[in-house]
Amino acid sequence: MEPTERTSVLVCMTCRSALDRVDARCSGAVLADATCSAAGDAPDICVQRVRCLGNCTRGPSAAIRTPNAWTYVFGGLDPTCDADALIAGARLLAAAPDGLMPWRGRPEILKRALIARVPPIDFVESDL
Amino acid sequence: MEPTERTSVLVCMTCRSALDRVDARCSGAVLADATCSAAGDAPDICVQRVRCLGNCTRGPSAAIRTPNAWTYVFGGLDPTCDADALIAGARLLAAAPDGLMPWRGRPEILKRALIARVPPIDFVESDL
Repeated sequence: MEPTERTSVLVCMTCRSALDRVDARCSGAVLADATCSAAGDAPDICVQRVRCLGNCTRGPSAAIRTPNAWTYVFGGLDPTCDADALIAGARLLAAAPDGLMPWRGRPEILKRALIARVPPIDFVESDL
Repeated sequence: MEPTERTSVLVCMTCRSALDRVDARCSGAVLADATCSAAGDAPDICVQRVRCLGNCTRGPSAAIRTPNAWTYVFGGLDPTCDADALIAGARLLAAAPDGLMPWRGRPEILKRALIARVPPIDFVESDL
């Protein structure tokens, strides 16, 4: 599947939490591993590690995007708890007919943790 | 020019600042107007009004994107001062050979005000 056709969860692997021990792996790397595990061999979701998503003061961070939809950036994620929510959110967005991640059914953490969203490339706001 | 080929500044026109008077236009709408004025008739930059970029607690907000480059979201902008910086940042990004907005020459506000950034669609992190 081409990059332009797939649904991706991009996990910032450089995010460091204030609670991270100096000698431990950073939270972003742990979240990236957990998200890869949560996706498993799913053919519909691609998990990508990136450095960095620029949300350094409010990490750990991840973004979700799929063709013809808004891109969502989330922060303040829990590296050990929120990987499943990212995968579920990615599937919700991929199935959304209007390109918006639906509120109903959205994992609670993805309701609270929104950092920003960006519209699809051909988006034009209505009623201007 | 097709949407997939142009450099865009997307301004959130629903951002409201704590300093906005109840009976006044919201800061986001003022920033959107100022950014359109700053762009003028420039053929290389498209200013788009959107509602909303999801950065509601740290607005006013704007995003900059161009083909084959990272998308940048900025917040805490000044609606009356920062429009020129957004246009300058958009041109810097459009000219960047590596798809990253260069630090050198970047308007100061776009150094301080980064909210998040998302890589281009075909991005693959190196050295993983």
